Amino acid sequence: MKENEIRQNKVTRQWVIYARARRRRPKDFQRETITRKQPSALDERCPFCPGNESMLPPVIMERRRSGSNGWLTRVVPNKFPALTPEGNTDRYRKDIYVAMHGYGRHEVVIESPLHNRQIADMSLEEVGAVIETYHARYVDLMEEHRNMMTIIFRNHGPLAGTSLIHAHSQIIVTGMVPHHIRWREEEAQRYFDEWGRCVYCDMLEYEAREQQRVIVENHSFLAFVPFAADVPFEIWILPKKHAADFGSVSDSEKLDLASTLQVCLSGLHHKLNDPDYNYVINTAARFRAGEPQLHWYLQIRPRLTTQAGFEIGSGISINPSVPEEDAAFLRG
Amino acid sequence: MKENEIRQNKVTRQWVIYARARRRRPKDFQRETITRKQPSALDERCPFCPGNESMLPPVIMERRRSGSNGWLTRVVPNKFPALTPEGNTDRYRKDIYVAMHGYGRHEVVIESPLHNRQIADMSLEEVGAVIETYHARYVDLMEEHRNMMTIIFRNHGPLAGTSLIHAHSQIIVTGMVPHHIRWREEEAQRYFDEWGRCVYCDMLEYEAREQQRVIVENHSFLAFVPFAADVPFEIWILPKKHAADFGSVSDSEKLDLASTLQVCLSGLHHKLNDPDYNYVINTAARFRAGEPQLHWYLQIRPRLTTQAGFEIGSGISINPSVPEEDAAFLRG
Repeated sequence: MKENEIRQNKVTRQWVIYARARRRRPKDFQRETITRKQPSALDERCPFCPGNESMLPPVIMERRRSGSNGWLTRVVPNKFPALTPEGNTDRYRKDIYVAMHGYGRHEVVIESPLHNRQIADMSLEEVGAVIETYHARYVDLMEEHRNMMTIIFRNHGPLAGTSLIHAHSQIIVTGMVPHHIRWREEEAQRYFDEWGRCVYCDMLEYEAREQQRVIVENHSFLAFVPFAADVPFEIWILPKKHAADFGSVSDSEKLDLASTLQVCLSGLHHKLNDPDYNYVINTAARFRAGEPQLHWYLQIRPRLTTQAGFEIGSGISINPSVPEEDAAFLRG
Repeated sequence: MKENEIRQNKVTRQWVIYARARRRRPKDFQRETITRKQPSALDERCPFCPGNESMLPPVIMERRRSGSNGWLTRVVPNKFPALTPEGNTDRYRKDIYVAMHGYGRHEVVIESPLHNRQIADMSLEEVGAVIETYHARYVDLMEEHRNMMTIIFRNHGPLAGTSLIHAHSQIIVTGMVPHHIRWREEEAQRYFDEWGRCVYCDMLEYEAREQQRVIVENHSFLAFVPFAADVPFEIWILPKKHAADFGSVSDSEKLDLASTLQVCLSGLHHKLNDPDYNYVINTAARFRAGEPQLHWYLQIRPRLTTQAGFEIGSGISINPSVPEEDAAFLRG
């Protein structure tokens, strides 16, 4: 990309500005290597470490390594929940406004018993256990008919919203479907009605053929930097088999997802010196799980730039990197 | 608000979670008072300081104090523009994707000749000159028929996206209208078609009567914390006279806006110890300036919290403060 260009995200219709005057090379995004104190495998003040169970609410589920006493992953209720199971999903009026009870669920997935173990360094078995845990909780939580949407996400580092070192993800369930999700549904519906195809499937096919923005590919997944990436080194991991619902993944897909995720996160970790990032699994809301136009995917967003007033006002992002160069850098 | 509550923003339909377990008191958001080096009135390395004009592109406009040689405000092109006037607004295909040239404008409003002067401490005349400058540039820029939208915004502090101390705002003009803006238009249209009224006018009337979330009010403006504020101490400054277009403000409104803005920013500055913030003027896109259902307003968003994975995935915010308490704290 030699010129100034504005690109449109095919799925969200969001515009992203790529400005030459603001451009930085992939290497410019590397975090300075600071000799940080390496955490040890066990921290007696960490609520997620084995032996400190009294600091946590009771365990919801646990995955164990076969033939061993130790656990691989654990799920507990969030001690400071954003939403709680009390109440219901009824809306009420507050004069001209609308509100509802803070109904929902908020859980924490502890991804390893080891205090100093990150996904970037895990074995495939360990990452596999994390994905299995996401899936088991997802399926279980969506059985409750009031649960309209389940968001599985991971915050890594202070810029991404967490100060806890011990590897963990979170799951939040809501009792309503927000506009943000409906908008994605509507755009996908419009594309489907026009072309008779899932927009994500078309994107997948094109990116796999074009190869310019691909980071890694296996039997079930394609990981690539989107054409209109919002932020530097944004990555989408899309399942090749069309499916709206994360709940529908097969056992072999779970293993392939674990491997893809591990490659992507370890690429970010080693090539950019452990940048802060968020990832989130975007999947169908209740009643949309079988839709032919929706497609679940895992989205990784490194926190290397700051959204400022222009982004707040316009919803347009300014991305100082180039998706094709970001992908080449992560592949290389 | 005693219970967990989820509130809906009447204008954007965005949901915001207010969770008891995550609640903090207004005082908890105060920045620690660090004895920072006070900047001097002139910095020889600052491109915005008088005498350093050679570090900047040529001045576009300047406002002078009557009967004086000095300037009050100055507008220059941004040296690292996100968008530039070259090219046009034609869209082109990149296989399955859509893109366009980086057409637009990107200007900087230098708000004072003094390096250490912030809006929170300015005289009414000085803030008035800033508003006059916004307005003059807005009207001028919207004369060009390709300019579809003008975003006037201010980033204050590193968390808000700027490292420059010298007070300044920015203006970005785009050659397209993004979905973000269309969405606000559609919601307002739907409300108007249902109730025959502007949703912002209804909100204004209710907030002025209710007084619970009001910070300051004068002849032309009401400043309040919105019912479903996205972030702690978010403030909306709404003109009482219905107008979709910032370009239509009168001279007396400009002065009242200056005074309202000054009160709000100096409240934030003194009560929270100079927090980082963004503000943006939300106004009608081209061809929508006369609409009966749209209403321009200035939105201030302090940067006291971090948007994490849940917000990215769901578009729902988690606000650890309570709008009524934030307003009382700023009023008190």
